[in-house]
Amino acid sequence: MKNKIIIAIDAMGGTDSPNKTIKGLSIFLNINKNSDDCFFYLYGDEDKIKKNLEINKIKNNNIKIFHTSSVVSDEETPLTAIKNSKDSSMWQSINSQVIENADISLSAGNTGVLFVISRMILKTIDQISKPALAGLWPSKIGASVVLDLGANIECDENNLVDFSEMGSALYKSLFNDTAKVALLNIGSEEIKGTENLKKAYSKLKDVSKFGDFEFNGYIEGNQLFEGTSNVIITDGFTGNIALKTAEGTAKFITDSLKKSLMENIFAKFSLIFSYFSLKKFKKKLDPRRYNGAIFLGLKGPVVKSHGSTDEVGFYHSIDLCYRIIKGGLMDKIRNNLSHINDKK
Amino acid sequence: MKNKIIIAIDAMGGTDSPNKTIKGLSIFLNINKNSDDCFFYLYGDEDKIKKNLEINKIKNNNIKIFHTSSVVSDEETPLTAIKNSKDSSMWQSINSQVIENADISLSAGNTGVLFVISRMILKTIDQISKPALAGLWPSKIGASVVLDLGANIECDENNLVDFSEMGSALYKSLFNDTAKVALLNIGSEEIKGTENLKKAYSKLKDVSKFGDFEFNGYIEGNQLFEGTSNVIITDGFTGNIALKTAEGTAKFITDSLKKSLMENIFAKFSLIFSYFSLKKFKKKLDPRRYNGAIFLGLKGPVVKSHGSTDEVGFYHSIDLCYRIIKGGLMDKIRNNLSHINDKK
Repeated sequence: MKNKIIIAIDAMGGTDSPNKTIKGLSIFLNINKNSDDCFFYLYGDEDKIKKNLEINKIKNNNIKIFHTSSVVSDEETPLTAIKNSKDSSMWQSINSQVIENADISLSAGNTGVLFVISRMILKTIDQISKPALAGLWPSKIGASVVLDLGANIECDENNLVDFSEMGSALYKSLFNDTAKVALLNIGSEEIKGTENLKKAYSKLKDVSKFGDFEFNGYIEGNQLFEGTSNVIITDGFTGNIALKTAEGTAKFITDSLKKSLMENIFAKFSLIFSYFSLKKFKKKLDPRRYNGAIFLGLKGPVVKSHGSTDEVGFYHSIDLCYRIIKGGLMDKIRNNLSHINDKK
Repeated sequence: MKNKIIIAIDAMGGTDSPNKTIKGLSIFLNINKNSDDCFFYLYGDEDKIKKNLEINKIKNNNIKIFHTSSVVSDEETPLTAIKNSKDSSMWQSINSQVIENADISLSAGNTGVLFVISRMILKTIDQISKPALAGLWPSKIGASVVLDLGANIECDENNLVDFSEMGSALYKSLFNDTAKVALLNIGSEEIKGTENLKKAYSKLKDVSKFGDFEFNGYIEGNQLFEGTSNVIITDGFTGNIALKTAEGTAKFITDSLKKSLMENIFAKFSLIFSYFSLKKFKKKLDPRRYNGAIFLGLKGPVVKSHGSTDEVGFYHSIDLCYRIIKGGLMDKIRNNLSHINDKK
């Protein structure tokens, strides 16, 4: 069985689960019905999961259910969760990489708890000091990887170099293409930015000689969507501000557009004609396509789905897990990190 | 004459000047033709300015031209500029607040040089240690003030308190309404964020008791457009990243929309029907309406227009200068700062 990719899913995490998680799985199985290289461990209430598998007419030999008796709530803190919930679907789906033979874990549950539990169970890779949260960012020519999105408020130059190597490994696993690293800064000149950024700049110039990635220097916030650099490195505070600001801007603009197009009869009429174009536009920018943040730097990979996403969003997170393992993420991370050990 | 608002304009700074600066002035004079409370000092090449005034048919007794013989180029560094360009239109338009009786200075020239020169000539207000760059940010219900947008990479809690008082003064001068201050952070709980933010949070709770502003605590990047808080405080690094990311997101989305609506004949046809709605949408989000960043914390106010904006953008900067002085910015800043002196 171990020649299959094994994805351990917390079937209970997030709103409307296991309804949406199993529906998301159903979408994945329909889209990939001709490939038989993926196996699923589902953690949660066995009866509910079975019922949902029936509703979605999933009859598949590549699924195994592990019954768990509790769910980590959104209100829980990491401290209470560790004490109370070793039999939770979240805990068990992560522990699946240790006691079963899962390759990757996926949950739409409480982010703070997931991060702490993952770190406890899977442990940080020896060479690095801080794991990071990476996400996919839409660009003019496809998608980029951005990290850290909020796991570490403060990062020194060595953390930023680690993030570059891990982010490059993730990019190559997903897209099988050259990783082009840039540091997010407030100017493109070498002398700009904080001391940590300047030191990271100089280290990355060195480290890029190993060929794990090309180094493009600094980019500014308005270049995040260009795609010229596809692995964008920043500390967790700045990355989180950039991510949330981009989300807020997108919402503000699309809301304004909707309002404009609904305010009079002519504009409404125009929607008939632009229906398909707008649908394509909407699809391209659909945040569900980018659903799934990846914890990098642990001894096993963990994907966090948005808690409030629907089945389509959750499907994209399952697909992300599948592509990450198929692309050989962990081997690529180990390979990349071996290059920087003597550089610190 | 001193009962008029006097705006000192660097007529030569930015691309396509003095063409666009004088055209921008012409728009302002047309819109405000019934009010006679504004006087303009124009600094630059006298012949060119006169020619442009003629082209735009500006015959106005409220204009005085001051001939200057050089222009600060975009390539110049603050160091070379200070040495070479005391007769530049930029230098003289700022110095106008010292040797003439101008109330405010406006330039679309080199930002770095403008900031250094302004600080040298006008000096920082005694009570504060760092001046900041403030900008207007569109919101669901109007506009907000955001600072610092890039003048100071690192800011301590006292700087952030200063920015709150100055930003509130600016907001009240422009909109004559209650200032509602929030700190930009990566979570809304009191325990989230950097040490500086936590210290600023606790000081702002205290300082808000003087009634200069309401204090709303923390907001995240996605709430920047809500308008619930209208004075958003951050260090210059984070503020610049947020600003540029928002610009990049807006461009990415509107470019995608344009592409979608131009790609087939039906969508193009729909544009006829939605023309007026889309025009309104475009107008609402037109970045030229928000053109003009304000240096706060100097003994006189300086407004920086985007270098590449056109006459409409420059008009909005002139209008911003006018509203700032009419709203009594400097008095309001002095009043607000007097409240925090004993709080440091």
